[in-house]
Amino acid sequence: MADPARLSLNTATVREAWDLGACIEGCARHGIGWIGPWRDAVAAYGLGRAVRHLRDAGLGVSGLCRGGWWTAGSLAEAIDDNRRAIDEAAALGARCLVVVNGGLPEGSRDLAAARARCLEGLAAVLDHARAAAVALALEPLHPMTCADRSVLVTLAQALAWCDTLGEGVGVAVDSYHVWWDPDLAASLARAQGRILAFHVCDWLRDTRDLVFDRGMMGDGVIDLARLRGLVDHAGYDGPIEVEILSRRWWGRDPDEVLATLKERFVACV
Amino acid sequence: MADPARLSLNTATVREAWDLGACIEGCARHGIGWIGPWRDAVAAYGLGRAVRHLRDAGLGVSGLCRGGWWTAGSLAEAIDDNRRAIDEAAALGARCLVVVNGGLPEGSRDLAAARARCLEGLAAVLDHARAAAVALALEPLHPMTCADRSVLVTLAQALAWCDTLGEGVGVAVDSYHVWWDPDLAASLARAQGRILAFHVCDWLRDTRDLVFDRGMMGDGVIDLARLRGLVDHAGYDGPIEVEILSRRWWGRDPDEVLATLKERFVACV
Repeated sequence: MADPARLSLNTATVREAWDLGACIEGCARHGIGWIGPWRDAVAAYGLGRAVRHLRDAGLGVSGLCRGGWWTAGSLAEAIDDNRRAIDEAAALGARCLVVVNGGLPEGSRDLAAARARCLEGLAAVLDHARAAAVALALEPLHPMTCADRSVLVTLAQALAWCDTLGEGVGVAVDSYHVWWDPDLAASLARAQGRILAFHVCDWLRDTRDLVFDRGMMGDGVIDLARLRGLVDHAGYDGPIEVEILSRRWWGRDPDEVLATLKERFVACV
Repeated sequence: MADPARLSLNTATVREAWDLGACIEGCARHGIGWIGPWRDAVAAYGLGRAVRHLRDAGLGVSGLCRGGWWTAGSLAEAIDDNRRAIDEAAALGARCLVVVNGGLPEGSRDLAAARARCLEGLAAVLDHARAAAVALALEPLHPMTCADRSVLVTLAQALAWCDTLGEGVGVAVDSYHVWWDPDLAASLARAQGRILAFHVCDWLRDTRDLVFDRGMMGDGVIDLARLRGLVDHAGYDGPIEVEILSRRWWGRDPDEVLATLKERFVACV
């Protein structure tokens, strides 16, 4: 059983109904000690206001979602935007900046070039991140996102990028993205000391959408307790974010969502 | 450019409009020398009748789709059914039986057990397959199918299963299932002499369905010519099946589909 004190609310889980302020109040009301905000939610609420509200509520920030997205437009613009994301993460006192790297550039079939471009972007902001003491958490996304969201698709690949980049870079492990991987246990063993974030949700057997049909823990097929054990064993003892992008759950009352995920966190993770 | 003589029609590509007889006639009419039938199409048409029609039309059978499916019901029934599939493949003179292994059993979260069960089933039919001179082509499916269709999800994993099983077993490489894999080139190099089938279609950037939204070659993001080169380099010089499970293409005139895939095969593969 995961320690309930590790529970963190990723704001995307209730993003259709609550702004950042409502998320902070919701966490306080439900006794959740951590939050993982998205940048757009922070921007809409105001960075300074967010910092004050978080401090007043006594909430820790498990990570800021998200930097990266190196392949969509110009690399120079992506680098500038990632420097801003690093500054925001520092202001929020976030434990890391979660990096989603981006898919193939529109019109391209060159995976190797897209992957090289991500590494180039990461290398370009690394000094800025180190100076700000913001760790970059490379998040491998599920291979079904390879075309349009993330050319980084396995934990082994993320660890290889960490090796290339050196200090200040680690990985974000999300159950939804890695559960299928035959090399998962081996990769987690090799991730010792390099896990910066751990996100959980479930994979539904009858998944209907490639992006917005994630499941509540316990409703799907992922052995979350086993995965949490492997992540623990790799030396990660930080907060565990619940991130459920789901049209099904966005349609529910957010207080019900928080009550459910708290209960399921204890029962399933 | 792939040799047009290698083109094979997987019957699923036009399954909503044509029975097996119509597929055979369609291949003859369009100058396609190979066909990859599905078992249900063979059963509906009649095995003996299919064998005669294929012989009269002078068509080669690139592979029979599909054996496997070890995890859905009882293992004993799956073993019996796979023996029948092997006999059908032998009767058809198919170059291999394509094996799709199945997902997690309903209600299970135990991936390791499901994978062990597939290996147990494969081992149980291997003598039968060897005696019938039918090679078993293990097909890793895309990780998004891991819950409900295939716990075998990477080429590296398929090659490891081949190592365990020994003679008479190889792999089926399908562009749709493997294109995202960071280890693809390395795995294909290790597959030297073990590729029994090669299937092509494309991954659409705006994929809307996890099963029935595959793309026509050239309409998506896969560098098929590069992949074909890697597969060639691994020593595979057999037929190349076009297998497009797509509600979009099922809605079109099958003769138009065949004309298009012939043209795209030459242009893109």
